[in-house]
Amino acid sequence: MDIKGKAAESTYGPEVLAGIGAFGGLYDAGGLQKMRAPVLVSSTDGVGTKVKLAAQAGRYGSIGEDIVNHCVDDILVQGARPLFFLDYFATSALHPELTAAVVGGAAKACREAGCALIGGETAEMPGVYIPGEFDLAGTIVGVVERDRILPRRNLNPGDVLLGLRSNGPHTNGFSLIRRIFRNTPLESVLPEMKEPLGDALLVPHRSYLPLLRPILDSDAAPIKALAHITGGGLVENPPRVFPEGIGAEIRRAAWPVPPLYAAIQRVGEVDPLEMYRVFNMGIGMVIAVDKKDVARLQKELPEASWVVGELVQGTRKTILK
Amino acid sequence: MDIKGKAAESTYGPEVLAGIGAFGGLYDAGGLQKMRAPVLVSSTDGVGTKVKLAAQAGRYGSIGEDIVNHCVDDILVQGARPLFFLDYFATSALHPELTAAVVGGAAKACREAGCALIGGETAEMPGVYIPGEFDLAGTIVGVVERDRILPRRNLNPGDVLLGLRSNGPHTNGFSLIRRIFRNTPLESVLPEMKEPLGDALLVPHRSYLPLLRPILDSDAAPIKALAHITGGGLVENPPRVFPEGIGAEIRRAAWPVPPLYAAIQRVGEVDPLEMYRVFNMGIGMVIAVDKKDVARLQKELPEASWVVGELVQGTRKTILK
Repeated sequence: MDIKGKAAESTYGPEVLAGIGAFGGLYDAGGLQKMRAPVLVSSTDGVGTKVKLAAQAGRYGSIGEDIVNHCVDDILVQGARPLFFLDYFATSALHPELTAAVVGGAAKACREAGCALIGGETAEMPGVYIPGEFDLAGTIVGVVERDRILPRRNLNPGDVLLGLRSNGPHTNGFSLIRRIFRNTPLESVLPEMKEPLGDALLVPHRSYLPLLRPILDSDAAPIKALAHITGGGLVENPPRVFPEGIGAEIRRAAWPVPPLYAAIQRVGEVDPLEMYRVFNMGIGMVIAVDKKDVARLQKELPEASWVVGELVQGTRKTILK
Repeated sequence: MDIKGKAAESTYGPEVLAGIGAFGGLYDAGGLQKMRAPVLVSSTDGVGTKVKLAAQAGRYGSIGEDIVNHCVDDILVQGARPLFFLDYFATSALHPELTAAVVGGAAKACREAGCALIGGETAEMPGVYIPGEFDLAGTIVGVVERDRILPRRNLNPGDVLLGLRSNGPHTNGFSLIRRIFRNTPLESVLPEMKEPLGDALLVPHRSYLPLLRPILDSDAAPIKALAHITGGGLVENPPRVFPEGIGAEIRRAAWPVPPLYAAIQRVGEVDPLEMYRVFNMGIGMVIAVDKKDVARLQKELPEASWVVGELVQGTRKTILK
């Protein structure tokens, strides 16, 4: 078995009947038959041009974690727990050690998410990719009980928005980041920051599964909706899960914006409001919760969260205050 | 709803609770609960450098069909019927009309396969892709009853191999094809052929689902194993589904090799045996069947098939005769 197969095998539970190497991965769906009304939740995504920065820094493992965690968070927003994941890695010329590092990172994140890395494709595409460049995408399949799908239908003006901290720009805004810092070495420590620029930028996308899964699994979980803050930032993502007639108000002073964003804004001379349309600004996941449940939920969460705003009557837009 | 959403919506049955536009696609798995022992079968693949030829010819729709049918065939080999599909389309600079053509082709193939185009990602990656180039990958999820998974365990020396016709090189061998025909316009009609080169090369990958599904669905289906002839050609693909101790003998004179391959071999001065390692040579799917069931199966198939060889004692290799 090749390196990819070995890394993938480390993610297999008894449900995996065949993995990497077969024409298709086989996943025993017997567990779904014990559910009340299972709904499969699937998502495909890429890590965008963060791949270029990862290639530049030679950090291939962390980009494998990025794609898995991004996908895990995308389906978590609908209440799902992951079942299995498949990666797509393509480049101008394959280097087995780089492929192994990417897949190793993906396998690590899959193990942490209890998700099987059941398949994938590695492609050599000379003449399509710029020499030395690569692309990485992934597909996740998870499951949720039909009566636990998020968002719930009872979102109302007055519901509170809680923010959970991100650990970096995750996988968004990297075309802008790369343009702004095109002449800044990744080893530089900018005046606003304590760590080298590359370290701050390349932290793998955070998975919110360990924080939120225990709460979502409980009966009468107080979470009404989740919004994963990806491309479109804090402005565009929360409204994606709102019904007609609902908008959001987010108070920028409500949480400490990490110093990286001050550096990005200063060096790139970016409009302050535009920053919230591109980046997560330190908040990677937003929770909508009934006002009466805020204290209880904050206590149940294993880390600090911030009240960042609330739902208002509106037109599926975010108003920044 | 955008163009992508509309094309995707044309593929939705009542199982699709949410599709393109949501963080993740929602697929009601209630149908799986009525099965005896459902196993989910998934596969990710790309169309390789066929994308370059498609871009050159400006045929974006057919490449969308290619990726879906390739994936449909990959999981058919394990006996699965498709449930849903997600695409990944990335390029240096997005052109909405090209994206619409690709997704339109994918949606057409999904409708034909009874498969929901439930999600996907479209990415603009300047600096990763060569200007004007794109990549297309896809992920399929299907399902099979556990006791109907292929290959069956009773493969034996003496079992017969039937070949089903392909309709072109499908999605394999295009790096070699492009090198060989780098100076030949796609409109050329080569001496061996009756149609322009580009037409012969760009026919979408054939789906074998309509041919084989009715047979696989019957009790006591005589099909013991299927091999989808993709990268590695007729030499490397059949053994992928054989157990230890089994090999294949394939007789090259057993079927009429389409004239395209004679043209490829002549212009490229390719070794005749190497051709069978790269291309499907006119056989896109191989069926293993007990000798006593051959006549019955050939009658059940809605089109002609060829007896192309048989299983022999061996070491998971193909011997070409």
